[in-house]
Amino acid sequence: MSDRQAIRPHEIATDAPLPRDASIAFIGVIRTPWTRREDCPHQGKPDGPECVIELTPPWDRALDGIEGFDTIEVFYWLHLSRRDLLVQNPRHANAPRGTFSLRSPIRPNPIGASTVRLVRRDGPRLVVRGLECVDGTPLIDLKPDHCHYTPPKAGD
Amino acid sequence: MSDRQAIRPHEIATDAPLPRDASIAFIGVIRTPWTRREDCPHQGKPDGPECVIELTPPWDRALDGIEGFDTIEVFYWLHLSRRDLLVQNPRHANAPRGTFSLRSPIRPNPIGASTVRLVRRDGPRLVVRGLECVDGTPLIDLKPDHCHYTPPKAGD
Repeated sequence: MSDRQAIRPHEIATDAPLPRDASIAFIGVIRTPWTRREDCPHQGKPDGPECVIELTPPWDRALDGIEGFDTIEVFYWLHLSRRDLLVQNPRHANAPRGTFSLRSPIRPNPIGASTVRLVRRDGPRLVVRGLECVDGTPLIDLKPDHCHYTPPKAGD
Repeated sequence: MSDRQAIRPHEIATDAPLPRDASIAFIGVIRTPWTRREDCPHQGKPDGPECVIELTPPWDRALDGIEGFDTIEVFYWLHLSRRDLLVQNPRHANAPRGTFSLRSPIRPNPIGASTVRLVRRDGPRLVVRGLECVDGTPLIDLKPDHCHYTPPKAGD
């Protein structure tokens, strides 16, 4: 565990083991210019560098139709994060706070979500702007951005 | 598997087993007025009925500070969804489409996300409006809405 993962004063961790109630399947990998966590921007920007989302077969087949959207939501697994902190003391914060009142990557289920701009699709790869995660982050889901999404038809 | 889970014409499922690359911990349960999936609204509304998010210990401790936010993001596990469809044919749609170009609950990692209004906190329970999931849905994360969130201080 790196220094960055060390616990800070006033932080509270649980020592209860996390239950394994469901399983996550990695369906691809995200390629970004940031090879270390400490180099990642705090928030992705629409004019940030191009990043590549590579789908693992057979999930590339499930991309069909995504070219029609400018803006997509990307969900990924923050595989470098510890998961046991109940209370965190962010650097420079003036008081410790509960994990659910923070947007820190340290959470019981470390799921990251970003809204990105789709630049183009190259077969099983999507070139996008707006990500902020470290190179090699596992992909877990993609969907059209809800602000820009109209269902195929108002149905049930 | 109910009729609702049956495959439709032109839908494509993968028969490759989903890898179990990471585990999800259920950290609470969501109580809503909808006991069957078919009764759930398609999209939660800020003036929808009050629903209750119940945290399981020790994760109630991680709520501290959440009272300061009006709007929070709720992540949950769509435990009733099949996970194997690559191409889906939504009822009333005019053509089949890849799973990632739809916001259907059927996805390889069936994570649901809603933005809700926090009405009040009662100890380990949050009363909220804006949900759309079925009663008993497992909770996996909570965080302040990114549109309303300012980090404790611009940090490292």
